[in-house]
Amino acid sequence: MRRFDVDDLKDVAVGAAVLGTGGGGDPYIGKLMAMQAIRAHGPVEVIGVDELDDDAVVAPAAMMGAPTVMVEKLPNGTEIVTAFRSLEEYLGRPITAVLCGEAGGLNSTVPFIVAAELGLPLVDGDGMGRAFPELQMVTFTMHDVPATPMVMADDKGNSVLLHTIDNRWTERLARSATIEMGGAALIAFYAMDGRTAKRAVVRGTVSLAADIGRTIREARATRRDPIEAVQARVGAHKLFSAKILDVDRRTVGGFARGEALLEGVDDDAGRSFRIQFQNEFLVALEDDDVLVSTPDLITLLDADTGEAITTESLRFGFRVVALGIPSDPQWRSDEGLALVGPRYFGYDIDYRPVEDRVGT
Amino acid sequence: MRRFDVDDLKDVAVGAAVLGTGGGGDPYIGKLMAMQAIRAHGPVEVIGVDELDDDAVVAPAAMMGAPTVMVEKLPNGTEIVTAFRSLEEYLGRPITAVLCGEAGGLNSTVPFIVAAELGLPLVDGDGMGRAFPELQMVTFTMHDVPATPMVMADDKGNSVLLHTIDNRWTERLARSATIEMGGAALIAFYAMDGRTAKRAVVRGTVSLAADIGRTIREARATRRDPIEAVQARVGAHKLFSAKILDVDRRTVGGFARGEALLEGVDDDAGRSFRIQFQNEFLVALEDDDVLVSTPDLITLLDADTGEAITTESLRFGFRVVALGIPSDPQWRSDEGLALVGPRYFGYDIDYRPVEDRVGT
Repeated sequence: MRRFDVDDLKDVAVGAAVLGTGGGGDPYIGKLMAMQAIRAHGPVEVIGVDELDDDAVVAPAAMMGAPTVMVEKLPNGTEIVTAFRSLEEYLGRPITAVLCGEAGGLNSTVPFIVAAELGLPLVDGDGMGRAFPELQMVTFTMHDVPATPMVMADDKGNSVLLHTIDNRWTERLARSATIEMGGAALIAFYAMDGRTAKRAVVRGTVSLAADIGRTIREARATRRDPIEAVQARVGAHKLFSAKILDVDRRTVGGFARGEALLEGVDDDAGRSFRIQFQNEFLVALEDDDVLVSTPDLITLLDADTGEAITTESLRFGFRVVALGIPSDPQWRSDEGLALVGPRYFGYDIDYRPVEDRVGT
Repeated sequence: MRRFDVDDLKDVAVGAAVLGTGGGGDPYIGKLMAMQAIRAHGPVEVIGVDELDDDAVVAPAAMMGAPTVMVEKLPNGTEIVTAFRSLEEYLGRPITAVLCGEAGGLNSTVPFIVAAELGLPLVDGDGMGRAFPELQMVTFTMHDVPATPMVMADDKGNSVLLHTIDNRWTERLARSATIEMGGAALIAFYAMDGRTAKRAVVRGTVSLAADIGRTIREARATRRDPIEAVQARVGAHKLFSAKILDVDRRTVGGFARGEALLEGVDDDAGRSFRIQFQNEFLVALEDDDVLVSTPDLITLLDADTGEAITTESLRFGFRVVALGIPSDPQWRSDEGLALVGPRYFGYDIDYRPVEDRVGT
């Protein structure tokens, strides 16, 4: 167990954005809200998944929607607690710990709000080890944890409770409700007991996010290269240095979809790159050759600050360094690739691990 | 109180289709399901709304969706009971009587299924006195009855519970869930106590439907004109006799929308008519002149059989008689017209009662 205060939270927000691969929501918003909650209620206890009792009840809290919309629809902090409390009510038993659904800017900090407000511990882990765009894309699905009962709440006071036959159906029904709710909703779902959590959770991602954030902060404070420091910390492969030439981005079907065109700079001058995304970066290409694909992480870091750039903040002229980070091994299994591999997203390519595709 | 057996149910199905103004779902499907339920469990007690205790709990059961889809997605009879039972569970108290949400083919018979299966009485009334396409379009809304908690169930086993800030929001969220569920869902909603039901319910529409059905049946048995008999029974104004020339029908946003073109026959030869619909018939025109508009009822009867023709069964060559029937007086109030008047549906016309527009 370790207590996370406001400064730790700042590191988590910065580090989670690196794991968020462009998605997971703007870290800034979630950070402010979680800082406010911690100031009001005190530090949050972050516990290892093995510290859970087998009969503990754990559930993730998150924001669902297109990051492009989430930036404009600030949750006020009460909806997420309402959603979480409602889930507890429908379960008919107290939820004893909060969990992160994904590792990503907003969704690594939203659970801190719930944990702080309700005085619950936060489990050090999540369901992805990164961010993914659809809600069935969690290791929980591979461990047969149903997403429902799932509660959704909006900023107006509407709420929806879902019971579905599988997690793909949860995604379908929740996505259309999210769209009706204006493009973003606060959600509580995937309630599971401690025994299941010990099998299903990707471990250590909250403290990993904090470490990455601290690594960036300390590198900058000591005038070392923050990007090299991040690379070393997470075993990332540098893909290229580039400048953003153009961004084609639309909000379609409740997702931010599109493509960024980049031209190489410095050692990579003369090369052309593309990164395609659905909330999160899915595939990085050089001309028509795949450099890295989902489920491995593609992360764009600001060449100056070392901080991650999210899908919705991609802009012409930004100078970036692209990293490829190996995904959690669970995603590389047949079952994992069926859920989140390139073919699921419509790419006619086989997955090859980033470490095989690019040298270190 | 009066017991409705299988034969009464047949009359209800035929008569409710007349009140359904083209919508409310195919009466045939609902009839078969309700007949099966009555055969299995015995006749259904239909009670007057004044027979309800003030603290009775009443709720309508219905099928939601585009009638064009409902024809193809036969509910199996268990989903609607599941939805009704779930609503009861979320309310935390037993529902003591079933109600019709609307008067229309399928939705006048679906409540019989629930009543028969659960051994509950059915209230003689509904929330429209006709059918309307959107779920906030009920007299219940005018009497401040919230549509939620509302339960939706599909044929696959998914269910959704809604809590919304108003009935328009219920419609929005329920419509998008219905679309995801394949275009049709079974619903239970608008739970209210007996005291409220006495104010809010449009009275007598179940027995009215049975009377209309019997009127048509008896007229045909005695070789009288069933259409004249219906006209006399409901105070309908004959609009025209015509043949269907063309039907433009699309399923858009979860509704069957479109227009039928008709050419006058017999006394109306040489005249041209149009009927526009959104699940239900909204406006009947001669050339560009409005003959009848919502909330008054526009009903197309088969010129031979006197039975009502639903939106989804409109076909080239059908010979029909169009009737205009005065709506329940509640719909003619300012509040009623705001909910279901022609302007709500996008027509730039003022409502004028059918009896002022056309002679008897």
